[in-house]
This record gives sequence, C-alpha cells and structure tokens, in this order.
Amino acid sequence: MTTVYILNGPNLNLLGLREPEIYGHDTLAGIEARCRAKAKQLGLEVVFRQTNVEGELVNQIHEAREKAKGIIINAGAYTHTSVALHDALRAVALPAIEVHLSNVYRREAFRHHSYISPAAHGVICGFGPQSYELALEGLAAILNNKGKA
Amino acid sequence: MTTVYILNGPNLNLLGLREPEIYGHDTLAGIEARCRAKAKQLGLEVVFRQTNVEGELVNQIHEAREKAKGIIINAGAYTHTSVALHDALRAVALPAIEVHLSNVYRREAFRHHSYISPAAHGVICGFGPQSYELALEGLAAILNNKGKA
Amino acid sequence: MTTVYILNGPNLNLLGLREPEIYGHDTLAGIEARCRAKAKQLGLEVVFRQTNVEGELVNQIHEAREKAKGIIINAGAYTHTSVALHDALRAVALPAIEVHLSNVYRREAFRHHSYISPAAHGVICGFGPQSYELALEGLAAILNNKGKA
Amino acid sequence: MTTVYILNGPNLNLLGLREPEIYGHDTLAGIEARCRAKAKQLGLEVVFRQTNVEGELVNQIHEAREKAKGIIINAGAYTHTSVALHDALRAVALPAIEVHLSNVYRREAFRHHSYISPAAHGVICGFGPQSYELALEGLAAILNNKGKA
Amino acid sequence: MTTVYILNGPNLNLLGLREPEIYGHDTLAGIEARCRAKAKQLGLEVVFRQTNVEGELVNQIHEAREKAKGIIINAGAYTHTSVALHDALRAVALPAIEVHLSNVYRREAFRHHSYISPAAHGVICGFGPQSYELALEGLAAILNNKGKA
Amino acid sequence: MTTVYILNGPNLNLLGLREPEIYGHDTLAGIEARCRAKAKQLGLEVVFRQTNVEGELVNQIHEAREKAKGIIINAGAYTHTSVALHDALRAVALPAIEVHLSNVYRREAFRHHSYISPAAHGVICGFGPQSYELALEGLAAILNNKGKA
Amino acid sequence: MTTVYILNGPNLNLLGLREPEIYGHDTLAGIEARCRAKAKQLGLEVVFRQTNVEGELVNQIHEAREKAKGIIINAGAYTHTSVALHDALRAVALPAIEVHLSNVYRREAFRHHSYISPAAHGVICGFGPQSYELALEGLAAILNNKGKA
Amino acid sequence: MTTVYILNGPNLNLLGLREPEIYGHDTLAGIEARCRAKAKQLGLEVVFRQTNVEGELVNQIHEAREKAKGIIINAGAYTHTSVALHDALRAVALPAIEVHLSNVYRREAFRHHSYISPAAHGVICGFGPQSYELALEGLAAILNNKGKA
Amino acid sequence: MTTVYILNGPNLNLLGLREPEIYGHDTLAGIEARCRAKAKQLGLEVVFRQTNVEGELVNQIHEAREKAKGIIINAGAYTHTSVALHDALRAVALPAIEVHLSNVYRREAFRHHSYISPAAHGVICGFGPQSYELALEGLAAILNNKGKA
Amino acid sequence: MTTVYILNGPNLNLLGLREPEIYGHDTLAGIEARCRAKAKQLGLEVVFRQTNVEGELVNQIHEAREKAKGIIINAGAYTHTSVALHDALRAVALPAIEVHLSNVYRREAFRHHSYISPAAHGVICGFGPQSYELALEGLAAILNNKGKA
Amino acid sequence: MTTVYILNGPNLNLLGLREPEIYGHDTLAGIEARCRAKAKQLGLEVVFRQTNVEGELVNQIHEAREKAKGIIINAGAYTHTSVALHDALRAVALPAIEVHLSNVYRREAFRHHSYISPAAHGVICGFGPQSYELALEGLAAILNNKGKA
Amino acid sequence: MTTVYILNGPNLNLLGLREPEIYGHDTLAGIEARCRAKAKQLGLEVVFRQTNVEGELVNQIHEAREKAKGIIINAGAYTHTSVALHDALRAVALPAIEVHLSNVYRREAFRHHSYISPAAHGVICGFGPQSYELALEGLAAILNNKGKA
Repeated sequence: MTTVYILNGPNLNLLGLREPEIYGHDTLAGIEARCRAKAKQLGLEVVFRQTNVEGELVNQIHEAREKAKGIIINAGAYTHTSVALHDALRAVALPAIEVHLSNVYRREAFRHHSYISPAAHGVICGFGPQSYELALEGLAAILNNKGKA
Repeated sequence: MTTVYILNGPNLNLLGLREPEIYGHDTLAGIEARCRAKAKQLGLEVVFRQTNVEGELVNQIHEAREKAKGIIINAGAYTHTSVALHDALRAVALPAIEVHLSNVYRREAFRHHSYISPAAHGVICGFGPQSYELALEGLAAILNNKGKA
Repeated sequence: MTTVYILNGPNLNLLGLREPEIYGHDTLAGIEARCRAKAKQLGLEVVFRQTNVEGELVNQIHEAREKAKGIIINAGAYTHTSVALHDALRAVALPAIEVHLSNVYRREAFRHHSYISPAAHGVICGFGPQSYELALEGLAAILNNKGKA
Repeated sequence: MTTVYILNGPNLNLLGLREPEIYGHDTLAGIEARCRAKAKQLGLEVVFRQTNVEGELVNQIHEAREKAKGIIINAGAYTHTSVALHDALRAVALPAIEVHLSNVYRREAFRHHSYISPAAHGVICGFGPQSYELALEGLAAILNNKGKA
Repeated sequence: MTTVYILNGPNLNLLGLREPEIYGHDTLAGIEARCRAKAKQLGLEVVFRQTNVEGELVNQIHEAREKAKGIIINAGAYTHTSVALHDALRAVALPAIEVHLSNVYRREAFRHHSYISPAAHGVICGFGPQSYELALEGLAAILNNKGKA
Repeated sequence: MTTVYILNGPNLNLLGLREPEIYGHDTLAGIEARCRAKAKQLGLEVVFRQTNVEGELVNQIHEAREKAKGIIINAGAYTHTSVALHDALRAVALPAIEVHLSNVYRREAFRHHSYISPAAHGVICGFGPQSYELALEGLAAILNNKGKA
Repeated sequence: MTTVYILNGPNLNLLGLREPEIYGHDTLAGIEARCRAKAKQLGLEVVFRQTNVEGELVNQIHEAREKAKGIIINAGAYTHTSVALHDALRAVALPAIEVHLSNVYRREAFRHHSYISPAAHGVICGFGPQSYELALEGLAAILNNKGKA
Repeated sequence: MTTVYILNGPNLNLLGLREPEIYGHDTLAGIEARCRAKAKQLGLEVVFRQTNVEGELVNQIHEAREKAKGIIINAGAYTHTSVALHDALRAVALPAIEVHLSNVYRREAFRHHSYISPAAHGVICGFGPQSYELALEGLAAILNNKGKA
Repeated sequence: MTTVYILNGPNLNLLGLREPEIYGHDTLAGIEARCRAKAKQLGLEVVFRQTNVEGELVNQIHEAREKAKGIIINAGAYTHTSVALHDALRAVALPAIEVHLSNVYRREAFRHHSYISPAAHGVICGFGPQSYELALEGLAAILNNKGKA
Repeated sequence: MTTVYILNGPNLNLLGLREPEIYGHDTLAGIEARCRAKAKQLGLEVVFRQTNVEGELVNQIHEAREKAKGIIINAGAYTHTSVALHDALRAVALPAIEVHLSNVYRREAFRHHSYISPAAHGVICGFGPQSYELALEGLAAILNNKGKA
Repeated sequence: MTTVYILNGPNLNLLGLREPEIYGHDTLAGIEARCRAKAKQLGLEVVFRQTNVEGELVNQIHEAREKAKGIIINAGAYTHTSVALHDALRAVALPAIEVHLSNVYRREAFRHHSYISPAAHGVICGFGPQSYELALEGLAAILNNKGKA
Repeated sequence: MTTVYILNGPNLNLLGLREPEIYGHDTLAGIEARCRAKAKQLGLEVVFRQTNVEGELVNQIHEAREKAKGIIINAGAYTHTSVALHDALRAVALPAIEVHLSNVYRREAFRHHSYISPAAHGVICGFGPQSYELALEGLAAILNNKGKA
C-alpha cells in the first residue's frame, strides 16, 4: 500500500482554538480523521504529523524520502520564511502538494510569498479542511499517473 | 439543478497546441469533457466558456451573477494584470475558485501575483486538467455548505 | 449645441447592485439621468456610454474626437492599468475630466495610481454621482473659457 | 447659517505672482472673492485662511471643529509631507474636501502622493480657482444630505 | 507565396492625426502602402491589421499561426501591459518582430518595459514608418534562413 | 562621400569564438565585411572600430564628430553601465543607431537597461549580423532625409 | 530637584476627543496629572508642554538643554517625518524617551518608521497614558544611574 | 495568584558575556532575579524561560495559553524573522509585551522590523534589564484593568 | 547697495554647542560675522536670519522676494523633508545658493536627498563656515553677471 | 591541541543523495573524512556536526565558545534567513569561516544574501568538498597568526 | 610652492562645443586659464588634466599622492558610476573637492548619486567655471588650516 | 607546465600604502612573491598583472584564453560595476576564481554585489594575501580534476 506524509507546521496544533474567523472550528484531530477517511477511499496510507520546530519539519520530509511516495505539507508560518523547507522538498524529490486552510492571498502581504510553492507540484488553498482532501485526490492521481505528469 | 460557470481566459483556446511542456497535451475540449463528467457526478450543471477579450470575461462573470451559483475561473494572463476581473468577481459576490493548469509559482516572476486571488474563495494550481476537477469538488462542497463557510 | 461624451468603464453597469457600501445605491441609469438634467442646465448635450471592454473605451474616445468638445471619463478598474486609455486621451486632445464615485485614495494601494490623471485636465473623486455633475460644471467652464485655460 | 472653513497652505499667498504657467494669474484674494460669491449662492458662510506654518494649519483645522460644519483644504506642499494634517483631519471628523489649483498628477512624482486624500471625503484638482467653487458645491450637497452619504 | 502578418495595436488608427511631434505625419494607410511595396520587393504577402482591443490582437496572432510564417507587431500601449500578448506570441511560436515608430526609451518610464520583447525574435524602434520596412527585411532574412538562426 | 562610424565595444573582438549559442558563429571581421558591402550599396563609407576600453569608445565618438555624419554603436556590456557613452553621444549630436546581435530583452535583467538608448535615434536588436545592415539602411534613410525627421 | 521635560506634539491637545478607539478616553490634562503624580513619587519635577508646530517642539527641546536633565517626547505625527526633531535631540544630548499612547506598529505603514527612535535612549508604546508613567520610571533610573548606562 | 510568562529567545543565555557594549554586563540570571523581585511587588508569579530554538518559543507561548494571563517576550533575533511567533501570539490571544534590552532602532537596519510588534500589546526597548521591569508594571496594569483597555 | 538674505534653519542656533565633531566649534554668531566681513568686500548687504520653524523660513524667503536680489540658504534638517521650501524658492525666483557646513553625503542616507537643490542655482557643502563665504562669492558673481548665467 | 568546530546546517545530511548536479556526489561522511585528514596535517582537532534545527546550530556555536578556537560553518539554507546565527557568531567572537559547496552567486537570488558573512572572518564557496579543506587552511593560518590579523 | 591637481573626466574636452544650454560656452582651456589665474592669487601651483578613460583618472589620482597636497576633481559621468575613483580618493587620502559645472540635482535622476562625494572633503556645483575657482579657494583654506579641519 | 593568470584591478598597486586597517600591510609585490612560491609548490606557472583600466583587464582575460588554463582575479572596485568583466570571463570559459583581500560583506552595501561571482567557479574573500594562496590551491585541484567538476 502506498504511503503519503501529511506534514503540519507551527501553530496548527491550536487549530479550532485559534482565530476561528480565519481558520474555522475544525481541530487538527478532525482534519486528520477526514484525511484518513479520504485516504482509505483512495487506497493510500497516511502518516500525519505536526511540529512547531522548523528543523523537525525538515527531518520529517527527509524521513518521507524513504518511507513514502508523496507529501502534503501545510507549513504554516514557515511557508513564508523557510528556505530550509524549500531545499528539503527539492532534495527528496517526491511529489509534494502545498495546502493552506485559508486563502493566504486575502491576508497580510507577508503571507503572499511562499518558499514552498516553487518546490511543490501544486498548491491548494482556501478550502478549509477540504484543502487536505483535495490535495489527497490530486496526489493520488499523480501517483496513479492519471494527473499531469 | 445548480449551475456553475467555468470561465477560461486568453490563449487557453490553443491548449494542447501551445507549449505542451508547460501546459500538457490536453485540449480545452478535453478539459470541458472532464469537467462535464465530474459535474454530473456532483449534480452540477456547467456553462463552459473561453474568450481572449478581458472585457468579455467581465461580461461572463456578470452573466453568472444571475444564472449561476458559483464560478471557476482560469483567467490565464489576465490573472496577473486585470483589476477589472478582480472588481467583477467582487461585484457579483459568488463563490469563485481560481484555477491554473501549471504551478504558476515555478514560472516567471510576473506570474506570481494574481489580482484574482484576493477576490476568490480558494486557489488550485499545478494539477493540469485535474485542477478543474478539484475546483468543482471544492465548489460543490461550498454550495452544499460542507466546505469552509 | 456642444456635445460632451461621458464614458464609463468596467463593472459600472452593475452600479447600485455592487458593494453599495463603497459605490452607493445609485444605478448607472440614475447617474445618466442626473447628468442629462445637469447638462441641460449648462446647455450641453450628453452622449452617455458604458462598456466592459478596454478597447471599446479607446474606440469611444476616438469617436468623441469628431463628435464632441470634451470628455468625462470614469474608467473604473482600467484607470489603474491602461496605458491605452492614457494614449487615447492624449491622441484626441480634448479636455477630459477624470471622475470616480468613491475616494480611490482611501482604498487598496493598487487604486492610488491612475494612468488617466496625467492625460486629464482635472480629477474629481469621492462625491458619488455628484462627481459627474461637478465634472460637467467644470467642463462647461473650460468650454466657455471661464475656467483655468 | 452653516459655516465652512477654507484653509490654504504654504506659498498660496504668492498666488498670481508665482509661476503663473502652473497656477494661473488669479490672486488668493480673487479666489476668496469667488468663494464668498459661490458660498452666498449656496447659503454657506465662509472662513478663509492662509498660513505658511504647518502647525498653524493644524490649529485652524482644530478651530473648525467647534466653529464649522466642513472644511475645504488646499494644503499646498504640506499635502505631500504632512502626517500631522492627516491626523488633524481624522481627529476633527468633519467632512473635508481636498482641492488643488493644478492637476498635481501632471507634475513631479513627489506631488503624486497625498497624506490629505485618505483623510478627505473627496478630491478636486486641476480646475484653477474653480476647483474651490466645485468643492463648495460638493460640500454643500454633503451637508444637505444630497451627496453620497 | 509566404505571408506575414503586420499587426497594429491601440491608437495607431489615429496615426498622422495624433501627436505628430512624437509619431510623425504618416497615416497608418501610408505605412500599410510602404509595407506592401517593401513586401513585394521581398517576395512576401502582407496581411495588415489594426485593432484597439487587446483580445482581438490575441485573436489575430492566433490566426497568423495557421495562415502566416511570421509576425510584425506594433502593440502600441499594450506593449507595456499585456501578458496576454506575450503568451500569444509564445504560443504560436512564429518568428515575431517588435516594432515602434518612436524611440520608446526616450519617453516616459512606463514605456521602457515591454512584455513583447522577450517573446520576440528582434526589436526595431525609432525609425518612424521605416521601422516596419526594416522589420520586413529582417523577417525576410529569417524566413530565408539567411538571418541569425 | 558620406562617412559613418561603426563602433564596437568590449568582448566583440571574440565574436564567433564566444558563446555561439548567444552570439552566433560570425566573427567581427565577417560583420565588418557585411557592413562594407551594404554601405557600398547605400553610397556610404564606413569606419569600423573595436575596443575594450570605455574611454576609447568615448574618444572614437568624439572623433566621429568631425569625421562622420552618423554613428552605429554596439557598446556591448558598456551599454548597461556607461553614463560616459550616453554623454558622449549627446555631446556630438550626430544621429546614432544602437545595435545588438542578440535580443537583450531575453537575457539577464541587468541587460534590459541601456544608457545608450535615450541618446540614440533608434535601436535594433536580435538580428545577429543583420542588425548592423538594418542599422546602415536606417541611418542612410535618416541622412537622406527620407526617414522620420 | 531634577527637572524633566515632557513634550507633546501635534493633535495631542485633542486627546480624549479624537478617535477614542485608538487613543482612549483620557485627556491630555489627565495625562499631565498622572505624570505629575508619578514624578512626585520619583522625586522629579515636570515641565509639561504641547504644541502643534514642529519648530516649537525644536525650541522646547533646546530649552530643555539648559533647564532639564531629561526629556520624554511624544512627537505624534512628527515622529514619522521630522529630521529636525531628530537633530534637536542629538544636539541637546540629554537622555530622551520616546513614548506613544498606541502601539504604532499595529497601524498604518507610514507610522512604523520613527526619526525619533535612533536619537532616543529608549522607546515605550502601546500602554496608553501609562506609557508616560513607565517612561518617567525609566528616565528616573537612568538619571539615578541605576538603569543601563 | 496571577502567572505571567517571561520568554527569552536566542543568544540571551550568553547575556553579560556577549558584546557588553550593546547588551550590558547583566546576566540572564540577574535579569530573572530582578523580574522575580518586581513581580513579587506586583503580586504576580513568574515563569522565566530561555531557548535558542524558534519552535520551542512557539511551544512556550502555547503553554502560556493555559497556564498564564500574560506574556513578556524578548524574542532576540527571531523578532525580525519569525512569522511563526507572530502567529503564536495571535493564536493564544493573551496580552503580550515585547521587550528589548537595547534600542534596536539605533542598530542595523535588519533589526528595525519586528514581526512581534503587531501581535503585541505594547513595546519597550532600550532600558537594559529595566525594560523587563517596566514591562511587568505595564502588564500588571493591563491585568488589573487599570491600563489602556 | 545689493542685499542678499542668508537664511538658517532648525538647530543652527545651537552651532558650536552641538556635535562639534560634525559641525565644528564656530557659533552662528561667528558665521554671521564672517559673512558680514566677506559681504562687505563684495559690496553686498546681508540680512542674516535663523529660525526653527519651517513656515517662518517660507515667510523669510517670501520677504526676500521684495527686499533682496539673492538668497543663501542652509535649511538644516528641512533640506531633506520640505517641499514647502522647494516651492517657496521656485516662487520667488531669485538666485539661491544651498549651503551646508558638513559634507552631507558622508552622513546618514536620509541626508543625501535635498528638496532645496533642484530649486537652487548651486550647492556648496563640506567647508564649514567657509561654505557661506564661498556661497557669497558665487552669488556676487551671478549678480554681477560674471558667473554662469 | 587546538580544536575547531565544523558545523553543518539543514539538508546537508542528504549530501550525495540530493541534487548531485549542484552539490556533487560526495556524502557528508566523505567530507568529514577529508576534513579530518586535512586537520591532522594542520595539527588541528575537529568536532564535526550536522543538524537541521536552526536553534541547535546556535547551541553548537555557543558550545564552541568554550571548547574551540575557531569555527567553520556551512549553514545551508539558514545562511540566508538566520539573524540568530549572525548574533551567535558575533556573541562567541571566535574566528569563523563561512563555506559553501556550490557557488551560491550562480543560483537563485534568495541565495545571494548571507547573514553569516558580516559575522565571519572570511568566505569560501564553489569548491565542493575542497571548500572545507581550504577553510581549514585559512583558519589554521589565522590561529597561527600567519593570516591577515 | 604647494601643488594641487585639477582632474577632469570624460567629455569635458568638448566643453563649449557640447550642449551649451547645460554646460555654458566656456572651453576647458578657458577654465584652465581661470584656474591658473586664481591659483596664482592663492599661491598654489596647478597641474590640470583631462582624460576620457576611467583608469587614467585613477592613475592621475595616484600620481597626485606623491606630487600634490590636494585634488579638485570633476569626474563627469564617472561621478555616478565609478567605485574605482571612490577607492582611489580614499587610498591617497588627500583633501579632495568635487566640482560640477552644472547643478546636477536639476538633471536626470541618474546624476543625483555620486560615488565621489563620500570620498571628498566638500562639493561645489552649479557655478559654471566659477565652481573650480571656488574649489581652489576652499582647498587653499584647508591647506592653510583656516577652513574646517 | 600549466600557466595561470593572476589579475589585479584598480588601486591594488597602492596596496600596503592604502587604508592598512582594511587591506593590511602587504604590498602587491609581496603578494606576487607569495603567489609564485605557492604556485611553485603546486607545479603551476604564474603570470601576475595589475592595471587600473577596466578595458585592460578585459584584454588580459582575453590574453589568458590562449596562454593559460585558469584565472585568479581580484577585480577590486570593478567587481561591483563591470558587466564587461563578467562577459569577458564568460567568453573565455576558463575556470576563474574570484578573490578579495578583505571580507567585502562587512563593508559598504555597494560592495556586496559582484558581477564577477556568477561568472566565476568559486569565491574566496577575507583572508588577506592568503586568499590568493587558497585560490591557487583551489584552482590547482580543479585543473587536476580533483576538485568539484
């Protein structure tokens, strides 16, 4: 069975508690559950992680290199500041999907630039928890050679 | 039955013929077919349009205001230069999903800014024709009140 | 009798329907009526147009060159992006007044620059539909040689 | 009877003497006379001031707070550099109209930005002394609740 | 016989009438006549078009894709603002020559950047109507494999 | 007989040897031969020079002031950095044509600005050695008063 | 007894009346009273001033040079635009504390830069009237050699 | 008893050892002692932490959310680069005071921007260890509802 | 006898007391004495003024318009921020010399731009009090028609 | 025996596996071996570390303060974003050499700025693993007082 | 007798011939004569040079190091582009005066920055040939220890 | 025997005499001697040159194309301004090492950008004369195919 890593960055552990007008009322556990359900439908196995430490995200991406076939990443605030994550994604060379719960382009200017995007296969933002589900579908298609090569 | 408008901007009529290393080998007709199939599954009706004229895209968005419940828009090059499309989307106040075939963030710097994004509900890019299918799913969820409000 | 062209750009056809907290509740038809009334007082004939297509605005400016003595233009979103309108106004060399319903300087930064202003005789913004009436007065004075030469 | 303050900033005392190719041949006294005549028609009383000191302009705006219902301000060079005037207008919260004799957008780049505009109700420029008359009409309509609320 | 498209953008229809100190006294009809004469010498057939609508220029470039072997384009004001024309030229992949009547680098700063140039084979500006003739020669050489590959 | 100076800047002596994928396989001697042939047709005499020293280019432009009626200049890398060449061309006040072998607008950003262009009559780039021949034609027309005055 | 000058810039005279959602409901007289009470505790004498004129603030800083041992300054809008105040503080070489009622970094971008800060010993902002009391404590410690030298 | 978290970022463990001409001779233990003494006076309990890892600072802020009523943070170098800390402070929604030992506005330009400030209630810098004491006073007042709401 | 105004801006009254390593040990009175001595040699009468208020500098320039034939101005900090002084100098249209004691180009970046310079005939900086003497010589020559017209 | 710390930042653990066209085929273990061999020749002892966590790099630099006489650091992606590493190097005040395997100036623009460089003694980049060997030589010379003081 | 070098950069050999509306009608020989006359009065010997080659200006500055006590330099266009001249002036450490015939701050923006100024003692511009004479006076005073140290 | 060119740019002839606190006390002759000694060890022959003329540096690079296998270049001030040197290095396509005596990243901002770096194999700076020795070692390894390919 094919494994994909779903990696979550800083402050996402507070989801549901934090600024619900921006991020909604779902908790990260709720999102994990939705991801597992969707993955099951798609025949994928999910490793689901969260950390507030940039370097641990780098470690998890490295770990995915040997254990998984693809990555879905919501790097949170590190999206906008981390060259290290950019390099990690380039280094492991797995198809990666960047996701965000909110539409980052409607928010502060410092959230409009992403170091993840140029290292990602595709980007999905603004759909709340569904962003993750859509990303799983997209990734499944790529892994099945049905998506855009 | 719920109608959604799928609007396509300049040069997308040449799809499949134009720079396949960036845009893939699918034609716009092929994408339309995939959209209609996916929409049928989701219980949606699709109006599918393409134009090279910025003002006609504005007109089509206005038309959607009375005839549809949501918009999926790939504004092509006008994404990066059109305040008029931004205003049109704001004016009609329908949920709109911005899609791109390619991951625009991997391309020239002038493609990294979008006037569509801050007027859209969500953004999906980099999945080739599947970008449209994912957008339809996302839009369906919003219309069914299942997505992020 | 002296004719003036009053030209309206993209999305102004939705006036009254669109974001009334910014643009007010007047419709474009209402503004046209107010303009015709004011023009009558001033002894001017009005040609009143609206289009969503940038190039048609260019055409209408060209048309004014032979049929009118002055132009009032609310170029909407094209104000901020159109060198073509700038050039058209320069080319026809009629006195032109730039108008806006809202005070554009209180809005997004991308609305603070106008390509119309340096090609216009004067600018009036922020008075809602009255902006057009004031522009007609200003234009009448110019045409009567009573305003600033 | 309703009073409005008409405030004039630095160098406007030299009007008619100074660079007539930009500012015309009218003197400030001539403009004051035109303003008084127009105000009379509109049923308004005018307090007309000029000063070269930024802080005195601030003082005059504060004075208007208790003595007037609206402000017309040509802040001259301080338009482009004075956060203090911006704050003063915000603080007194009267409807204020920014006027300029010349079309500032046809001149040096440092005249294209105004700290007054985002604190003003509307802006009128390029009509010479008539700019003030149009501003009085605009202000009268606002005070009569006939203009845009 | 080899056909080339000569495409003209906004305001060029007013040539000879508009700002002759910048654009000269030649009309667009005069330029067309000079182009046809020069093309005849070079054994080329010319399709000569003008439009004020950006999207129609896109359409004409697309049309050239099937009907011509090369393009000469004076996109006027759209030169500086149109990503859509950039993409259209890239999409049709014909040799294209960018021409301007005036030396755009001696004019306003906003005319110094061209979205056409990076999608063109070569650029010629500043020679008035002769710019077109030189472009025809250059294009003929490219089509005859005599120019730089 | 009318003389024109054709001046070549740094590294052009290596032409044909240097990065042929950008500059082609022609040598500078080959270009000189093509220029002399074309000049003969046009009834012009050519002085053809190359130097790697910025100040010598200045000297050669000064020399042209007394000995020639026009200048064709490919200033190579100094195009982008030399105010001295700009001033020299302004000072001698001869019609000057800027040429480049490659289309500089397709290359690094630092090659997109030219100090030569605002001091030149016209610009031709991207046609390989033919750029020089087209420049000679353009210059001949100017000198014969047939081009744009 | 040690004297400190507490200097207040433009529009602070309107405190309590002006935008209370930003500046709170305290009046400047109320702040003065709190300062005098706190100063008494600290064994300091206070000279408390307010002016809307930039140059008078400069004069007051100069006056402090001979009459005081330290300065607390809320330069209001001049904070962001006045090199003259910067120079005055440098010139008198007394320890100076910059205070603001609001947290200026949460407001418009033009309030994020201060010409006062690099000429000040320390900065305190966001605590409303308490900002002044904390500044007095900080200044007292400096004057008693207990703070950071 | 009310608890406040005092959090210290990278390199502050070296305090007293590191560049004393900028940071003074106090050690972090010395500052902790002064904080505890001042907190005791104010009836506050203090949790005092230092870490060099950005993500651990995020964790500590999260921890404060359940265990404390307010935060004092000297994020050191992360002040200028960490969107993650900005988001963490926003997420926990406790009153937070940003402190710095030195006046950061007198130092390198890259220290003039803070991601902490717009997420903080107030900012205090330049008072050496006393910055922390003043912050405790300010925070106590906020928690006692005596400060600016 | 010909009169010239020598105008001095903010903080120059502290000269000799303020930062002598930058401004030297001369007082403003000393400079006035040197100016009067030099003016006597040149057959000029001097009016010598200093003020810390920008608007008073504007007033003094206006006064010079009727009472003097030339202006020497050291606008101090207002050099870098005052459009009003720029306009005043333009308005009175007397030859004006900008002077500075220090070489402003060796100091902070915000001192490198001058609004005075484009409105002045010439600029002299870096010679301490002698800057004024050289300016008097330069102005004398202009008034005697011996300098550059 | 003199100890030097050789510190390696994020993603360098993947060396040899990651983008060999940029970083070469050597592994980090191979580089460590080459360093140990070179150090032995130079009479130096080496502590060789790698971490993906920015704050751990800070910790290791602090550790070197007591245990080593010099530092060689390849901070990888943190080079371009970490003020914390800059401060750590400043704080420990040991001679530090910045190394990179690739020539960072030939890569993306965001790799052209280094926060490490202004805190380092010297910089060596582009020599692959040999960069480390050269750095060891350079550091040995500094420690032997033979290099530039 | 004390020697000073007066060095002139590119295009100054054309003085009197070149753009007299900017540079006046004096020739460089005329300026040299005026300099020699003034120098004689001041008891100085003059070496007067002109070159169009940047590196020769560097050589002449180096030469002055051994043969002169001061430098007056009009580096012409190299003023704005030459770090090499900046370094040369720094290296020889003689008092240097930067002169310009025209007021460079009234001209194109690229002439507003000088690499010479921060390496010079003072700057004089806008007085035509008299700029040199004033510079000689200024330099004489410095050498006589009468000017600002 | 393999020859390498060591090229030195402007002002390096003054080494040892010029600002020793930046460049050290070594003369260029001393550096040449150290280079020759080191080259001998490495089995390389050295051609060692210095010039103050940018174009001569270009000539010397061209000369190396036929006579040498590699280049070490300290272009001094031209490092930051010369596109011509960039192009020359690209043109000759020899391995080139950029060296600097000082750590340029600790100095003025205009020294932080190098046109040489993207055309070089590697960069070494900050080691004083040893920078050249390390460059020779690096170059030797490249020529022996031992360095990074």
